[in-house]
Formats: sequence, structure tokens, C-alpha cells
Amino acid sequence: MFMFEKPLGMVDTLPNLFEVKKKTRQAMTNVIEQWGFQFIETPTLEYYETVGVQSAILDQQLFKLLDQQGHTLVLRPDMTAPIARVAASKLYNHLYPLRLAYSANVFRAQHREGGRPAEFEQVGVELIGDGTTSADAEVIALMVATLKDAGLENFKIAIGHIEYANALFKEVLGNQERADVLRRYLYEKNYVGYKEHVKSLPLSSIDQERLFTLLTLRGGIDKVEAAKAIVSSKEARNSLEEISQLWSTLEAFQVTDYLKLDLNIVSHMSYYTGVLFEVYADNVGFVLGNGGRYDHLFEKFNHAAPATGFGIRLDRLIEALKMSDEQQLQCVIFSQERREEAIARTAELRANHKRVVMQDITGIKDVDSYTKHFVEVDYIIGSRKEEL
Amino acid sequence: MFMFEKPLGMVDTLPNLFEVKKKTRQAMTNVIEQWGFQFIETPTLEYYETVGVQSAILDQQLFKLLDQQGHTLVLRPDMTAPIARVAASKLYNHLYPLRLAYSANVFRAQHREGGRPAEFEQVGVELIGDGTTSADAEVIALMVATLKDAGLENFKIAIGHIEYANALFKEVLGNQERADVLRRYLYEKNYVGYKEHVKSLPLSSIDQERLFTLLTLRGGIDKVEAAKAIVSSKEARNSLEEISQLWSTLEAFQVTDYLKLDLNIVSHMSYYTGVLFEVYADNVGFVLGNGGRYDHLFEKFNHAAPATGFGIRLDRLIEALKMSDEQQLQCVIFSQERREEAIARTAELRANHKRVVMQDITGIKDVDSYTKHFVEVDYIIGSRKEEL
Repeated sequence: MFMFEKPLGMVDTLPNLFEVKKKTRQAMTNVIEQWGFQFIETPTLEYYETVGVQSAILDQQLFKLLDQQGHTLVLRPDMTAPIARVAASKLYNHLYPLRLAYSANVFRAQHREGGRPAEFEQVGVELIGDGTTSADAEVIALMVATLKDAGLENFKIAIGHIEYANALFKEVLGNQERADVLRRYLYEKNYVGYKEHVKSLPLSSIDQERLFTLLTLRGGIDKVEAAKAIVSSKEARNSLEEISQLWSTLEAFQVTDYLKLDLNIVSHMSYYTGVLFEVYADNVGFVLGNGGRYDHLFEKFNHAAPATGFGIRLDRLIEALKMSDEQQLQCVIFSQERREEAIARTAELRANHKRVVMQDITGIKDVDSYTKHFVEVDYIIGSRKEEL
Repeated sequence: MFMFEKPLGMVDTLPNLFEVKKKTRQAMTNVIEQWGFQFIETPTLEYYETVGVQSAILDQQLFKLLDQQGHTLVLRPDMTAPIARVAASKLYNHLYPLRLAYSANVFRAQHREGGRPAEFEQVGVELIGDGTTSADAEVIALMVATLKDAGLENFKIAIGHIEYANALFKEVLGNQERADVLRRYLYEKNYVGYKEHVKSLPLSSIDQERLFTLLTLRGGIDKVEAAKAIVSSKEARNSLEEISQLWSTLEAFQVTDYLKLDLNIVSHMSYYTGVLFEVYADNVGFVLGNGGRYDHLFEKFNHAAPATGFGIRLDRLIEALKMSDEQQLQCVIFSQERREEAIARTAELRANHKRVVMQDITGIKDVDSYTKHFVEVDYIIGSRKEEL
């Protein structure tokens, strides 16, 4: 094994990328703080039996280890479950609704080379203890503000509702296994497979058409009318009512230019219970972040409470931003007899907000190649020049 | 197991402490950046065979796990070895001397309840590829600047040299096992045990006195003379010469008020090879951070290079700072018919750099207890008041 190898999916963040991440994270956390959300940190390691099993991540993606007492620990695979643990502790009972935020690395074991990162940073919020549409709207409006302040211009948040497709499938198919097959096609965004499968089912042509129509329910809020036309159950109607109310609330926030309706969104996050959403940037093919309402998670922590939130993947956002940053470093190279002069000159430059390396010339092996990566180099070497 | 339990030594950082940590970290990273050090991030998980065995932390303190390929991984126990891995990769050969910095959590498994944290944040720097005293002085002067900018006032950096006690023990005791026993007493700062042990050794009274004198070699730089008087070997003389040169360099940085000499410092970090130091604040009993020269670590990464650096424990620094922070949150409570008014009012407050929660009144269970934790509450509820 080469001494500089890293485990599968693990990456180093070198100075220029570090700078981009820092600036982006700073812009995001500033606006989140302005909206009154409070940042917290939770441990990297949690008990598997508590946070591990309650997270929405597949068991095979968890990094597990045993502690000295024989308990199974996990590296946190997401931040929603740890925050639920904190919020469900008695500390916060009296403060609901509670607005918490995080900027933290999460961990997902990878099984193949060249694949996805096994550790990445998420910036997100959780609004806990408020079941109103106002809370859903606030979280979506804040997500828009966060992305805009990070510098992202062309993006859309696709908003759906977990209950709509569920109710439609129940009306048309009756049984759960059949619904699960179709849900999986939607989750994989395999619409050809979905259509083929619908055709293979023993359905009336009207019912078949209803399932095909589902795929067209993406676009503006006007699609709600077409959505209404193919359902009759109370659950489906209620979900559309919620979406409409959410949309008009978001109009008050003046963010609807960044939204689209998408009633095909099916999340792998089994804990979503209502409105859910995904963010896409125009210039990249992957989801930058997602979120939604999860009203059942807190029951697992012995503390029923409605909740909604979002998480944004910093690595993917940065890829969409296409920002770059070259750190502007200056250098003062000195020889020992003129050290005090060098210290004074360097202090002056630093006081003017320059980043300045002060380097003893005897510590450099190759001055030419060393000085290349500075935007400016001062030499304070040799005997002092006579003042004229 | 209660759902809100955490693994041994793991802690949550709640909003007020988060704020203190953030401000302190920010002050520290700002000055480190001004000095031309570049921050990087490395993965939380590293291979045991590379970074794990090269770190200075005891094997029993490592959190270990197996990856999918059967390799043993560790949660990084320090940042020096990961940074050495990065710096030793070919990426950086031409940039030496290299100034890197980090602000990162490290992990040390704990074996008892109520003990030390198993995960804590370190802020530190590594100056790689420069073997001059200028490099040692720069790192110590930067540590002073970092602590001062973080707001710490009364502290001292105790500076020693790993070779001095080693050379003295060799002169007096001859063999390594005897030296190791005395080194352990010094490491544990068990000076009574040290004296008892010295008395038990078959030594001349002059040699016994030399070993007792070592314990008095703490204070100002003038102690160097007393130190010289009890040694004759070249190694011991050289180490004192280095200390004197370092001190006069640090006078040029005008930081000697924060320094003291301590020739009793023995680090458990087996990789220190020269000057080493520890920081103490006047008001707390523990070491806030430490550092020193480690010229052999890079050989382990197939890349010989001298190096020096420091690390400061953020949790301990914050304890010494005794800072507290109560977040100043305002709240706008609204009813739905006046949502737009509430959005406008909230936006105005946020534009004035207030942190403002905007809360739908129907989402609050108990308005009285909810509003208690805000410094100011605006109610925009009920039908709009007629303008007079």
C-alpha cells in the first residue's frame, strides 16, 4: 500500500477548493442565521440502535464499528436523525417550534472505485414542531435564499407531495405490491420502464390513461387542475389542496420563479410524509439538495412532533457554481541580519489584509521555483542598503 | 437504551456554545491565513496502515473499523500525520517550504464515563520543509498571535528541547531503560516520584545533583546558563544553543513576554525531534495546545523533510476564555391574512443584520413560553389596523 493512499471514496480538499467551500458555506450559513435558525453540532459517531436505524440511509451504506463496551456505532449518514435526537431531548420541549441548522460532514460507504464520495458536507435546516403550510413554505423560501446567496443563478426546486402518487396508485391498482413496482420506476426516473409496466397490467384504458397522465404532471402550478381530474379519493384531493396553498404562500415570498410542480417525485427517504422537493441547477445533471415534511420521525424518539427541513450538498453546489479561487499570497524573503526589517514590513502588509508568507532565505532549497506561486515577492536580504 | 443517548465521550454543541466556537475559530483562522498558511481538509477516515500507525496516539485510543475490502480504517486521531500524507504526495514537492493549516475534529476512544471527550476540534499549522530556527520561531510567534486574537490574555508557552534531557540522561545514566523510567516521571509531571527514583539509583552525589537540577530548569531564558553547567556532551550543548538562538529570534517578534523556558517538557509524541512547547493559560490547569519540531515523520511517507507545527484544542481554549454568548434573536409572529406585511417587516429587520424568526401564530402551541427566548417580538396578527 502506498503511504499516500486514502480509503475508498475519501478525498482531500486542497487550498483553492477549501477557499471556495469556505466562501460558499459562509454565504449559506449567514442567510440561514438571519432567518433565525440556530446552528448546532452533533457527534460524528452515534449509536446504531438509535440514530443509525432511524436514518433514511440503507444499512449497507453505513460505516459501522464496535465501541469498547460492545455497542455498534455508526458514522452519521445524515443529520436529520441526529438533530431529531437533540430536539427530542427534554432540553427543547418548551421552545417548539424549533429552528435548527447544521453544516456537517456525513458518511456513506461506497462499494466501487471512482464512484461517489463516501464523506461529504451538507448544509441544512430543520423546522421542528410546526405542522402548518407556513413552515413548509418558509423552508422552501429559505432554500431559495440560501442558494441565491451562495451565488447560484439558474436553478429550480421541483415540489411534489408523497401522498398524491400513493393515493392515485391505491385508487387504480388497489394493492401495495403493484404500487411499489411503479414507485420504484419513478424513483429511478425510468419513465420508459414505467410505461411498459403500466401497459402490461390488466387495467381499463381509462385507468391506464390515468397512470400515463401522472408522468405529465410536471411544470407550472396550473398542472394541479389536470392532477385533480384523474383522482377522486380524499387523500389525493387533500394533497393537491396542500400544494395549492403552499404555492400561494410561496408567491407571497416572491420565489415562485424558482419553483416547478413535479408530482412524480418519489423519495427513497421513507420518512417523508407530505410535501417534498428536490433542487436542480440548469448546468448539472444531479440533485443538489432536497427536503420535505417528515411528521413521523420524532415518534421514534418518543416525542411526536411534525417537522420539515432541507439539506444541500456543498460539493455538488460548488460543482454547479463553477467558482474557482486562486489564493493571492505575497511573500517576504529575508536574510537573518535583516529579520526585524522583514517582520515590520510583513506586519504592515498583513495589516493591509494581505496574506503574507515571511520566509528565511536559508530555508528555501530552490528560490526560483519557490517564488513562482506568489503574486508578489519582496526581498529583504543581504546587508542593508545605505540610505541616500 | 434511551433514544437520546450518545456514545461514550461524544457531545452535542448547542447554539450558544456553537456561536462561541465559531467566533473563536474565525479569529484564529483569520490570523493563520494572514500569515500565509493555507487551510486544507483531509478525510475523517484514513488507512490504519498509513496514517493510523504514523500518528502519535496510542493504539488503544484509535477508533478502528473494517472497510468493504477488508482494510482496517481509523478515525483520524490527529491532523499531523494526514497533513504529512498530503504534503508528501508529489503534488507539493516543488512548493517547499510549505505552510499548511487545519481546523478539524480528531478522535480518541475513551474507556471511562465522565472522562475526556472522544471527539474534539483542533486548530493548527504545519510548516514543512524548513529546518531553520526561523521556522520554529515563526510557528511559536504565530501561536502567540493566534491565542491573542482569539481573546486569550494570560497565557504562557513553555519551550523546551527534546534532546536536552535525553543527552543529560545519557551522560548520567548511560543506559536507555533507566532514562525511560525518568522520562516517564517527567511526562507524568510526577516530580516527587522522579526525586525518589533518582535517590534510589546508584549514582555519585554530583550526578544525583545534576538530575535534581534538571527539575529547576524552568523560568526565564537565563536558566540556560544553569543548564549548560550540568552537561558536557555535544548534543546537550547544541540543544541549548538552538534554544538561545530561538529565543533571540522570538525577541525580534516581540513575543517573549508570553514565553518561558522549561527543559522538563517531555512529550508523549514520539515524533518530536527538537524544540517542543506547550501552552498554559493562567486560569485553567490543562495544556491548551502544543507543538514542536518533528523531522523524521516525513521519512515514513517516503519523503524526508524537516517540519514544525502546533495544534490548539478549541474546547480547552474556550474553557480558558470563559466567553459566553447568548444569541440575540427577534421574532415576528403573524397570522395568515397579514403574511405579506410580516414578510416585508422581517426582510427589513434582516437587512439591518438582525436574526429574525418569522412564525405563523397557528404553528405555536404556547405563545407565552415560546416568546420568552426572544429579545424582541413583533405581533402582526388579526385584521389590519385602520390607519389614522
